[in-house]
Order: sequence, then structure tokens, then C-alpha cells
Amino acid sequence: MPNILFAARSERWDQYETPLRQALSDVGLGDALLTTEAAPETVDYIVYAPNSEVQDFTPYTRLKAVLNLWAGVEDVVGNPTLNVPLARMVDEGLTDGMVEWVTGHVLRHHLGMDTHIHGQDGVWRAGSAPPLARDRTVAILGLGTLGSACARALATLNFRVLGWSRSAKDVDGVQTFHGSEGLKDVLHRAEIVVLLLPDTPATENTLDAEALALMPTGAVIINPGRGPLIDDDALLSALDAGQIGHATLDVFRTEPLPPEHPFWAHPRVTVTPHIASETRAPSAARVIAENIRRGEAGEPFLHLVDRSLGY
Amino acid sequence: MPNILFAARSERWDQYETPLRQALSDVGLGDALLTTEAAPETVDYIVYAPNSEVQDFTPYTRLKAVLNLWAGVEDVVGNPTLNVPLARMVDEGLTDGMVEWVTGHVLRHHLGMDTHIHGQDGVWRAGSAPPLARDRTVAILGLGTLGSACARALATLNFRVLGWSRSAKDVDGVQTFHGSEGLKDVLHRAEIVVLLLPDTPATENTLDAEALALMPTGAVIINPGRGPLIDDDALLSALDAGQIGHATLDVFRTEPLPPEHPFWAHPRVTVTPHIASETRAPSAARVIAENIRRGEAGEPFLHLVDRSLGY
Repeated sequence: MPNILFAARSERWDQYETPLRQALSDVGLGDALLTTEAAPETVDYIVYAPNSEVQDFTPYTRLKAVLNLWAGVEDVVGNPTLNVPLARMVDEGLTDGMVEWVTGHVLRHHLGMDTHIHGQDGVWRAGSAPPLARDRTVAILGLGTLGSACARALATLNFRVLGWSRSAKDVDGVQTFHGSEGLKDVLHRAEIVVLLLPDTPATENTLDAEALALMPTGAVIINPGRGPLIDDDALLSALDAGQIGHATLDVFRTEPLPPEHPFWAHPRVTVTPHIASETRAPSAARVIAENIRRGEAGEPFLHLVDRSLGY
Repeated sequence: MPNILFAARSERWDQYETPLRQALSDVGLGDALLTTEAAPETVDYIVYAPNSEVQDFTPYTRLKAVLNLWAGVEDVVGNPTLNVPLARMVDEGLTDGMVEWVTGHVLRHHLGMDTHIHGQDGVWRAGSAPPLARDRTVAILGLGTLGSACARALATLNFRVLGWSRSAKDVDGVQTFHGSEGLKDVLHRAEIVVLLLPDTPATENTLDAEALALMPTGAVIINPGRGPLIDDDALLSALDAGQIGHATLDVFRTEPLPPEHPFWAHPRVTVTPHIASETRAPSAARVIAENIRRGEAGEPFLHLVDRSLGY
């Protein structure tokens, strides 16, 4: 039976211990040793949060795989001491929560809800209805598990959905683009842009001053992806100029976002505290247990990270 | 060729004249007389807004049908001078717009968006994620064209959707209830209730003090249907008591809602100015032209109102 080290902050252990033991039992590994402390040379698998104390994998001499608890791997993928397979978390709970958050905020901006949420002053602001979703173009940058699921949900609501990814991908009901010329085409048409790209050196500042200038005047940006995807100073300038109509930002280069950061006070920015979605312990535990079962059975791991691409 | 009177406020004529002439032409009635003024005894069809000047249908001696421009017929169905078929508007644009508005506001409350839209004060309000939609119960009261479409859209997003109507109806993916006992069952479980019932004597004050008391503490009410569905004083008491957590109201007994009405100032109420959806001229014109074609061909009209039920 394998030895499994759970390397994450202690509050995660409180959430995960019971679901993990249950999920291991469900795949026939009820006798596995699951622990938060183990002599490194005895460990077969690490269930891993990149902000845990384990940063040097060298002493883990018999390690078979690192199973990330997070969808994002940018804080572990470049670790030079890691020489075994690394799997990212693909959790249906995380995906479903992201679809709900993205769909909700796209509809919020599509419908112009904030005018009324803020405007409870007795003034009856009637006027014409917003365009229908079929006449609204929404772009999803990043067509991994999360981006593809969000693109499909928005297409089901009749939005005109454009999808962009580094390399060519197909998503049902979505017009897809790739490469740097494709990105320009997408930005040029997008009234609402949702960022769900991985955080890699190649994606940093995807929305820089040049990219923001391509977008239609008054376009909206929604970022539940990663903070470094946006050049913050360029975004603030574009917001001040009215080039960008609003930005709803859930992720930042520094979290929590410092109280003095200009995003907080900007009338065209909504800051949300990295809540768009999170991994849910019961479904995530099943994903981890399945990968350990595969490792023990000599089957290929699911959701492996391509270390050369960084995601 | 039939004579068609367009009886609505003049700004509607500006919106509808071109689409109606086009739609009539498309069904082979390009030679019909379409006008805003006609001797009553010459009129075959009235395209009708209940707030128009035509309130006495007696002089329209050869009238074949009244084709309502609105989904709601409560201001015409009881007119004792109307003795010809009355068709309500069933417009795919109206339906799609309502689905978008309802889905958006359900997600807004589901996700707790207002906390962050209002909370741009530098405080990082992290915390646990909301439940997933699959663990959130939403009830739709009224399963006509609009209610059924909204119920299906919310079920597609994985919400647990309960539907209620006066008489038994089936909607794919939705657990349906009917009758007064069914209403109690639904209200007892609904964390978010959406009102899309017609306005009839039988539906007035559907949400009265007794009904509100059945709902789970902190439940949310969304009313894009008709103002009289709610007992306003009972709702204000339930909001003050915390029994109801929030009400987003788009329709009122008096519109525009008077500035002094307590809904405006209540911290747990969002007033929107009857914008949830509106009939869209291009698609509505096609519905009207099709019904006139049917009348001329001796075929049954679509979307007829049952005068005994009032909708």
C-alpha cells in the first residue's frame, strides 16, 4: 500500500482528510497510509498545495507523482527539484463553480445591472432594453477545462462566443481562434472578455496597452484567471480614458489586494477577493484517489502537466 | 386584402411600422392596409396595446381579432365590448430577454454579488465559496412561455428547479407542482423564488404574509411578472423581520414606482424600472403577421387567450 503525504496548510487537512480517506477506500486503497508528516524517503505520492512547506523535492527519493490540489501550477511547474510526473487538479466542482461565476458576471455586465443596484434613489431609469445575448459578443481567452466549460455555457444562453487559445482547439458552438493574429481578431470584436488562461511566461501581460487598444470602446474585462495576465497600469489608463468600460477582477499579482491599490477606489473596477471558484474537497478527493489508483496499477496518470509548456 | 389598425402609442408606431410592413409582405399580405387611423366599421384586425385610445370595441363591427402587442392581457381581457378572439404576444425576443434577465438575477443572488459590488472599500472579504447551483433550490411560479423557458435555462445551469402552476404542467428537467397544496410545498423549499404568473384575480397576492412565512429564512424574491402578485406591506414586514433576505422587483402596482415608496429606500430591495424584458419589434411583427395570415386563410389563431381564465 502506498504512502501518501498531504502537504498543504493545516486548514486544508481539516477539509480533505475525511473525503480523501473515503475516496481512497472507494478505489480499493483503504489501507494506504495518508499522513501530514512522513520521512521523505518513505513517500510515494504527495498531495500538494504550492504554498505548503515542501519546496525541495530532492529528499523524496521514491516519489512516484505530485498531485496538485490547485488548478494553477505556476508556483510548482518550474521547481528544478521536481523530477516526477505532476498532475494538475481538474475538479468538476471547481469547473461548475467557475461556470456559474463567469456566467453570472457576464450577464451582470450584459444587462447593466450595476446601474440599478447602485441607483436606488427613487429615480425610475426606464429606457430601452439591452441587446439580446444573440447580439452580444463575448470572448473567452483560454480554452482549457475551465474556459471551454464557460464558453459552452455562454453559447447555450445564445451569446456570440469567440474562444481563443495558444494552439488550435475546437469547442462546440464556439468560434475558435489561435495564435497571435487570432488574438487580435478576437479582441477587436469582443464586447466582454473573460480571462481563463494559465499563468506562464508566454501569457504574462496578455492584456497590455496594445491589446486593450484593440478592443471596442467601452468593452468589459472579467478576470477570474490569474493576476499577471493583465498589465495593471495599462488597464488603469484604459479605464480612465473610457476605452475599457469596466473591469471585474478576482485575481491579482498580490493577494490580498493591498487596500491602497488604485483598483479598489476606481469607479469602473469591481474587486472580488479570489472567490470565483475553488476546489471542492469531495470531488477533488475522488480525482486524487483515482490518480493514485492509476499509479499503483501502472496506468497513465490523468491531467498531467506538460512541463515544457508550463501548464 | 385586410384592413389593419395599429392602436398603440405613437412611439410604438415608429418602432413597428417598418417591421410590420416587412412581415406582412413576407406572408403574402404586402397589399394589406396598415394604418393608425381608420373608420371603425372598416377594420378587420387591431394590433393592440392596452394603453391605447381604443377602449370601446363596439364600433368595430367587422373586427376578426385583436392581436395584443404585450404578453400581459390583464388590461384588455375583461373588456365587455370585446367579443372577438384575443391573442396575446408570444415573442421569442421577449422570451429570450426574460431568460437572460432572470438567469442573471438568480446568479447574482446565488453568488452574493452585491456584497462585492457595494464593498469596494479595500477590505478583502474572502471566505468560503457559495454552494454550487446543484445545491441551490430555485422555484419558478408560473409555467407559461416565459416561466417554462426560465426554468429550463436554470436547470441547464444545474440549479434544482421547482416549477409551480395553477394546473398541472410538465417541463423537462424541472420538478413541477400545482394547486394550492403544491404551492406550499414549493415555497417551503425555495431559496430563490421567481414570479412569472399572469395577473388575474386568482393570482393577486400570491405572495401574502402567509405564503412569505412558509419560505426558508433569508429567501430571495425576484418579480419580473406583475406587481399585484405580491402583497407589498406583507413583503416589507417580512424583509424587516429578516424572513425574506432580499427582493429584486421589476414590476409594481403603480409604475413608475413613486419616489416616496418604501421599496426605494429599503436596503434589502432592488427596484428595477420594468426592464426585465420587452417585446422586440422585428420578431413580434412576424408573430402578428402570421396570425393575420391565419385569420385570412381560415386557420386557427396562435396564442389565443382563454377569456374565462383571464390569460
